[in-house]
Amino acid sequence: MEDNLTSKSAPQLGKYDLIAELAKLFPVENASTVIGVGDDAAVIDPTEENVVSTSRVFLENVHFDLTYVPLCHLGYKVVTVAISDLLGMNAVPTQLSVNICISNRFDLKAVQELLDGMRACCETAHVDVVGLDVSTSRKDLVIAVTALGECEPARLVTRGGAKENELVCVSGDFAAAYTGLLLLEREKKVFEANPTVQPDFTGKDYLLRRQLKPEPRLDIVEALRREDVLPTAMANVSDGIAAAVMQICRASRCGCDIFEEKLPMTELTFLTLKDLDIVHTVAALNGGDDYELMFTIKQSDFEKIKKVDNVSIIGYVKEESAGCHIVTGDNHHVELKAQGFANS
Amino acid sequence: MEDNLTSKSAPQLGKYDLIAELAKLFPVENASTVIGVGDDAAVIDPTEENVVSTSRVFLENVHFDLTYVPLCHLGYKVVTVAISDLLGMNAVPTQLSVNICISNRFDLKAVQELLDGMRACCETAHVDVVGLDVSTSRKDLVIAVTALGECEPARLVTRGGAKENELVCVSGDFAAAYTGLLLLEREKKVFEANPTVQPDFTGKDYLLRRQLKPEPRLDIVEALRREDVLPTAMANVSDGIAAAVMQICRASRCGCDIFEEKLPMTELTFLTLKDLDIVHTVAALNGGDDYELMFTIKQSDFEKIKKVDNVSIIGYVKEESAGCHIVTGDNHHVELKAQGFANS
Repeated sequence: MEDNLTSKSAPQLGKYDLIAELAKLFPVENASTVIGVGDDAAVIDPTEENVVSTSRVFLENVHFDLTYVPLCHLGYKVVTVAISDLLGMNAVPTQLSVNICISNRFDLKAVQELLDGMRACCETAHVDVVGLDVSTSRKDLVIAVTALGECEPARLVTRGGAKENELVCVSGDFAAAYTGLLLLEREKKVFEANPTVQPDFTGKDYLLRRQLKPEPRLDIVEALRREDVLPTAMANVSDGIAAAVMQICRASRCGCDIFEEKLPMTELTFLTLKDLDIVHTVAALNGGDDYELMFTIKQSDFEKIKKVDNVSIIGYVKEESAGCHIVTGDNHHVELKAQGFANS
Repeated sequence: MEDNLTSKSAPQLGKYDLIAELAKLFPVENASTVIGVGDDAAVIDPTEENVVSTSRVFLENVHFDLTYVPLCHLGYKVVTVAISDLLGMNAVPTQLSVNICISNRFDLKAVQELLDGMRACCETAHVDVVGLDVSTSRKDLVIAVTALGECEPARLVTRGGAKENELVCVSGDFAAAYTGLLLLEREKKVFEANPTVQPDFTGKDYLLRRQLKPEPRLDIVEALRREDVLPTAMANVSDGIAAAVMQICRASRCGCDIFEEKLPMTELTFLTLKDLDIVHTVAALNGGDDYELMFTIKQSDFEKIKKVDNVSIIGYVKEESAGCHIVTGDNHHVELKAQGFANS
């Protein structure tokens, strides 16, 4: 029966049979999940007082390109993206619901590959898939993901609590995902011009992985708890450092100085950007797709934050009238600009 | 400034400015809404023990056709659809989040019209919009809606509790929305053939309204509480009576007899379907887009349910081995079939 199913294009199956079949991929793990896939709605019995919710939509050829994105990585990534919004509130992700719109370009195997990627990320993050709907699209794949999480009110962190003289921190490193995207786009063009040329990504694994299969920074939220650091403001860095800084500064009614030399970047990213003739600071500020966390902390938490791995202090909070600036290596203050709308 | 904004196509605006502007349309009303639009995620402090969640995606030219669907009605309808899933669990809707993907075909005025429709339905249902994201599409409009609600565990009703000899009830009447769709599609074809011909919908207002601007049946969930009727199983009827009956029977491991003569339908629907040469029972069973509620009740609740307006008893629950049948006027038993996948 199953082998028979996989040879059909997904829309040939009865909708309810298809969803029932796919739902088996997602056993329920969390005690807070009362009802998962299979009824009109999911039911949660949250352990903590506050429930945190976010939704994201991903369109083929806008947010992803199946020419070079494997479906299982895409599944993993969309879950990371949604979960990262919850982590950006200092919350713990618990449930996820997924809506997929597919055309007859996709067979059941393709859908399963996508869902396998989602499952892998959900397992990493101990998140239950509690909603799963599949419907029809004309051509392009459309994916909508809603992530639910929990937080005790005392640990909830918004964008709006940063105060003057506090430290601006980020997790991980930046611009790698953007650089990976540039490489993939370049090789796509080469391939389109000459389909016999195989792409050469030797030594660039890290950049590709950051673009294709980013990890949700649960470790940071957990470490902040462990070291008893409560950030004063926090944001998911999905559209580059500049956008995240400005979100925090706008909500907190403050300004900031961010130091170019403090922006964390791997040597591989730096050198590859140099090869590509891209200014590395611009890539870190506006590149996007990092899904790292930015947060501000009191200066008194400085010793504690040093115990949290993979966190860099990149600047400090100033009064609102000072504005938001990047301070270059030669001590120029350049005003940060909001990024545009395209592709975000 | 605002007039200036409306003359721009939406993607010309900065993304965050656009969302901040649009968020003003949605003031927060419910005490359970801690943080609404404007941070990485929404935060809820639920009043009841259980949180109920559902997500729906709507694609232009698959789920709606802007040739004849006004954007404000579309906004209203997508909220009704999402909320109806929560009502189908006997839960009370409280929050909503919206993701819109637009191309440069849409100006800010169009987006505002869509959101105005959403707001109107949210006001009717006392639902707060707590999430709002706008991103880019290549051409078609894409809308994703997540609805959150609350329920005390004792009043939560799944599809899975129906028992033999219980009564099958539905709210409202059926096939009107489907008939409205047929009329709209017919007039679209006429218009495409000859653009000077104006559509004639005289006397068909009810059918069009049911298709274009369906109401969420909050009144039914409220009346069931008031009359102290706790359904044993419940479902949102979004894809026709047959699909809902079979969802309940499958989850409850039971069968049922549904009586053709008991299917509620207005005379207008009946006569219009006759004009269109469509068998009215087929339209009620498989038409879809009704967003009415189906539920089963104990026979001992018969007197109580008579006090709830707009509810019809259409059949009764049988043992699983009996299967699911529609009993025709001349007492033939016809097995109910699951509907297909297309357009659902």
